[in-house]
Amino acid sequence: MGEALLGLKRSAMCGELRESNIGSNFTVMGWVQRKRNLGGLIFVDLRDRTGILQVVFGEEINKEAFEKADNVRSEYCIAVTGEIVLRESPNPNMPTGMIELKGHNIKILSESETPPIYIKENLDAAENIRLKYRYLDLRRPDMQKIFITRSKTAKVVRDYLSDNGFLEVDTPTLTKSTPEGARDYLVPSRNYPGMFYALPQSPQIFKQLLMVSGFDKYFQIAKCYRDEDLRANRQPEFTQVDIEMSFVEVDDVIAVNEGLIKKVFKEILDVDVETPIKRMPYKEAMEKYGSDKPDLRFGMEIVDISNEVKNADFKVFKDAIEIKGSIRAIKVENCANMGRKDLDRLGEFVKTYKAKGLAWIAVKEEEIKSPIAKFLTEEELKNIIEKVDAKQGDLILIVADSNKVVLQSLGALRLELAKKLELLKDNTEFNFVWITEFPLLSYNEEENRYQAEHHPFTMPMDEDIEFLDTDPGKVRAKAYDIVLNGEELGGGSIRIHDSKLQEKMFNVLGFTKEKAWERFGFLLEAFKFGPPPHGGLAFGFDRLIMFLAGTDNIKDVIAFPKNQNAYDPMSEAPNVVDDVQLKELGIAKISHQE
Amino acid sequence: MGEALLGLKRSAMCGELRESNIGSNFTVMGWVQRKRNLGGLIFVDLRDRTGILQVVFGEEINKEAFEKADNVRSEYCIAVTGEIVLRESPNPNMPTGMIELKGHNIKILSESETPPIYIKENLDAAENIRLKYRYLDLRRPDMQKIFITRSKTAKVVRDYLSDNGFLEVDTPTLTKSTPEGARDYLVPSRNYPGMFYALPQSPQIFKQLLMVSGFDKYFQIAKCYRDEDLRANRQPEFTQVDIEMSFVEVDDVIAVNEGLIKKVFKEILDVDVETPIKRMPYKEAMEKYGSDKPDLRFGMEIVDISNEVKNADFKVFKDAIEIKGSIRAIKVENCANMGRKDLDRLGEFVKTYKAKGLAWIAVKEEEIKSPIAKFLTEEELKNIIEKVDAKQGDLILIVADSNKVVLQSLGALRLELAKKLELLKDNTEFNFVWITEFPLLSYNEEENRYQAEHHPFTMPMDEDIEFLDTDPGKVRAKAYDIVLNGEELGGGSIRIHDSKLQEKMFNVLGFTKEKAWERFGFLLEAFKFGPPPHGGLAFGFDRLIMFLAGTDNIKDVIAFPKNQNAYDPMSEAPNVVDDVQLKELGIAKISHQE
Repeated sequence: MGEALLGLKRSAMCGELRESNIGSNFTVMGWVQRKRNLGGLIFVDLRDRTGILQVVFGEEINKEAFEKADNVRSEYCIAVTGEIVLRESPNPNMPTGMIELKGHNIKILSESETPPIYIKENLDAAENIRLKYRYLDLRRPDMQKIFITRSKTAKVVRDYLSDNGFLEVDTPTLTKSTPEGARDYLVPSRNYPGMFYALPQSPQIFKQLLMVSGFDKYFQIAKCYRDEDLRANRQPEFTQVDIEMSFVEVDDVIAVNEGLIKKVFKEILDVDVETPIKRMPYKEAMEKYGSDKPDLRFGMEIVDISNEVKNADFKVFKDAIEIKGSIRAIKVENCANMGRKDLDRLGEFVKTYKAKGLAWIAVKEEEIKSPIAKFLTEEELKNIIEKVDAKQGDLILIVADSNKVVLQSLGALRLELAKKLELLKDNTEFNFVWITEFPLLSYNEEENRYQAEHHPFTMPMDEDIEFLDTDPGKVRAKAYDIVLNGEELGGGSIRIHDSKLQEKMFNVLGFTKEKAWERFGFLLEAFKFGPPPHGGLAFGFDRLIMFLAGTDNIKDVIAFPKNQNAYDPMSEAPNVVDDVQLKELGIAKISHQE
Repeated sequence: MGEALLGLKRSAMCGELRESNIGSNFTVMGWVQRKRNLGGLIFVDLRDRTGILQVVFGEEINKEAFEKADNVRSEYCIAVTGEIVLRESPNPNMPTGMIELKGHNIKILSESETPPIYIKENLDAAENIRLKYRYLDLRRPDMQKIFITRSKTAKVVRDYLSDNGFLEVDTPTLTKSTPEGARDYLVPSRNYPGMFYALPQSPQIFKQLLMVSGFDKYFQIAKCYRDEDLRANRQPEFTQVDIEMSFVEVDDVIAVNEGLIKKVFKEILDVDVETPIKRMPYKEAMEKYGSDKPDLRFGMEIVDISNEVKNADFKVFKDAIEIKGSIRAIKVENCANMGRKDLDRLGEFVKTYKAKGLAWIAVKEEEIKSPIAKFLTEEELKNIIEKVDAKQGDLILIVADSNKVVLQSLGALRLELAKKLELLKDNTEFNFVWITEFPLLSYNEEENRYQAEHHPFTMPMDEDIEFLDTDPGKVRAKAYDIVLNGEELGGGSIRIHDSKLQEKMFNVLGFTKEKAWERFGFLLEAFKFGPPPHGGLAFGFDRLIMFLAGTDNIKDVIAFPKNQNAYDPMSEAPNVVDDVQLKELGIAKISHQE
């Protein structure tokens, strides 16, 4: 058994001692990073949350401590008391590298077996081992840094919102299942056997009710749950910064959140985010970047060349125009000499986005090379080059198809090229953009009905409300996403606060009145009693931390994450439970049919 | 449909306008508290989160606004623009009572049906109506005040702990069921049909793992879940301030938390809590107050008079001594004249705590009256009076039985008398005490085994460890509760951090090694790798807010609470779900057998 503290108190953290502490006595406590026995001297690198301090034990410093120190091994937890002295051979790479602790006393607080993973930065161990021994994985300094960042960021967010009059209000997590959206996690009820609570996918309805209650400005850093098949960077439980405000329009919500973003990036990374952040209507984002979350760190914008080639005698182009599609291009600078193999690979790439093929024009110094040149007049070729503003040495890539296929494939191609050409190596650039004026509805071909693009509580733009009855697909929403470096960081909308308009919206979505009331009756009911105009936004907090910590793995920013099967190899959850317990809940296991 | 804002911006909050604003124009938005039409003038009390402002519309101020204002009714949501002017007949009871807003423009943002409950302070409506229309209940100013307090308190707690080097780390809520303790809420797993997650009863194990990880100082304001039958002031989901520290002993944990308590009560209530807060060993609390959460706002301490009456020829006393019980008394000042009926009622009261009866001695001015006087010598009577320090006019109440029954019944009697005699009317007194040196184990007579008094991870006191094998009931724990006005506000302990001691503890609790590893294997495994000494504490956050807000109903401090059946009358959760959904989870409903 380890030694007890018995009143011994820590008086300093390892990483914080400096030359100014020379000559004073301190007690530090932490873990043995490594030990070297050089005969008469034993050197121990001692680690705590703040960093590493070198401790030296010597036969001539204190014989008893020296002998005890010889027993310690990596990851033993020890306490050492001694004097800070100047190091004989300083290590300028360590903040504490000028000094060391002359160990007069040592307590071995607990021993350690050989850890199954190395406790060091940039570990390259198998994920399941890291998750199984998560408590050791979390000892690694780079992991600790991430959770220090996460804790600080939560604090900055709360400070900013509190200073701006927002109240943090907890909403319930045992709620009612509302099957619109992703799959709910269910919780069987013991008081009502056979009935279920659902864990919330977001506090959406509750925060709207808080607005009806007159709370005026609400926020919450809220756990949310979705029982989805886990793609990379999805976790069954995740966290969002949830915000809602009353008596506001789009500009008000955007202004508050720009302030928040500015504050977070300044405080955490010392990065100045310029505000106001640029805004781009959804339509423009789709046309220029083939995406509603465009990465604006590089250009390569999509250009419509339909007009330039509308008379060309080329079947592919003709077909596209016939089906009311288009012919569009991107210009890749200085890539006119791309080899045939690479071009073929890009062709294969766009096919995964349903494009039939990829045409190219290489604007070389001596000539213009293109497999489709034979279908184009010189004039047409010139017009294309002019339209996409290609210079000598540039490559033009062209897709012709329905607009959807053209934009999706060229949008994806642009990202692929950016990766290939290493245009995004500088990970200190943070390029924000608000995407606005989203379509309110999208048509679900399979179910043959409109569905809400964001959620069914989103307010249509005032000037488009009239089209709700006549041409629902045309209606734009008072919805906005904040996009950072091509990833959606958050999104929100102004909400409908009128029960008649809300009922109409459900109607357009194909809900019967009964079904709408069955599911959202309490919100519709609440709207009978003077609801204020309101709107809000939710940030993906985990994703925000990923940006701030510079990691692209969501598991790095969640202390105890699940693996791809929503399983925790450490605690072994989920797991079996007693049948008695199930009986109380009015449920039984059934054999599963695949 | 209500009018849209169309760019109209709020420029002031109702409750914040003052005489200094006279002559300026403002736009306010809120709800109609009431409207009075006095012919040529219409007065509207407009309410928002900050308070109420009187708005006046007049035919001669603005005819159009005047006519529109005549349509508004209680709880309409409106926006008014106008000029702040001095009121003709001021209302000194309102912060805004010196002024009013001369309404030049009004927008009716949304209408309201007649609300089913009054929007006013101190509402006396049926609870289920309040819960069903919670969004209206939360409009009431006293409810809003509570949630402002709750939000502020969370902020003060976070600020204090962050300033003291604590990191807030989220622990998972989809965890493994560990049946020791209360009943878990279960969540069926879709990936592993027939298996279940459990919602955490507390982050206990995870916070200990974070200490193993070297996080050093952790906190979290964490949602916790218990599927218990709801007594008053219990909710299925509740919130705790969860704290854990490494390299500490009892004094360190207590010091940090005293700082926290001091800060919270100062910032929220402007009350100075004197620190250090007194400490009382469990044994003393039980003997003096018959409770491990003694209310120290009044005296009436329990006094052992066994010695004074040990030779008395009174069967009740003799029996008590025979079974190694005791005879104990409390003194009730100035109650010697209590009537026979009241005394009988107190006798009935102690019987509910298994006492066989209540003896009394009334020390009247002219005589000493007592039904048991005939069994006692004058000397014995005198000795009792002296021992309990009774003066003329005092009443002595006596119970003789096993120690457990004597202490429990007199402990409860003391609280009952305090209530009856209205000793606790002053609800601005906050009397804190730490109860320490709890027994580590208590003997479960039914199951014929020891069980953990706090939880199985609690560290025994160093000097008592030796009794773990020989006399487990004698072992005291490094555990502490913080008690406020007779209620447990929080509790914690120093934890075992040695896997051998932890295994021994499980052994004493009757777990086989296999069972212990099956349930807590990952903690025992973690303890193999240099765990630091650590300990912590958890506050009941909801209860803390109840104290700060001065309410004795937990539902008042939770925005959307459940009723006594763990049901939410507003959202109607829990509810039915599709059988298809259950099938995916590998479960089916069964008919319930009582």
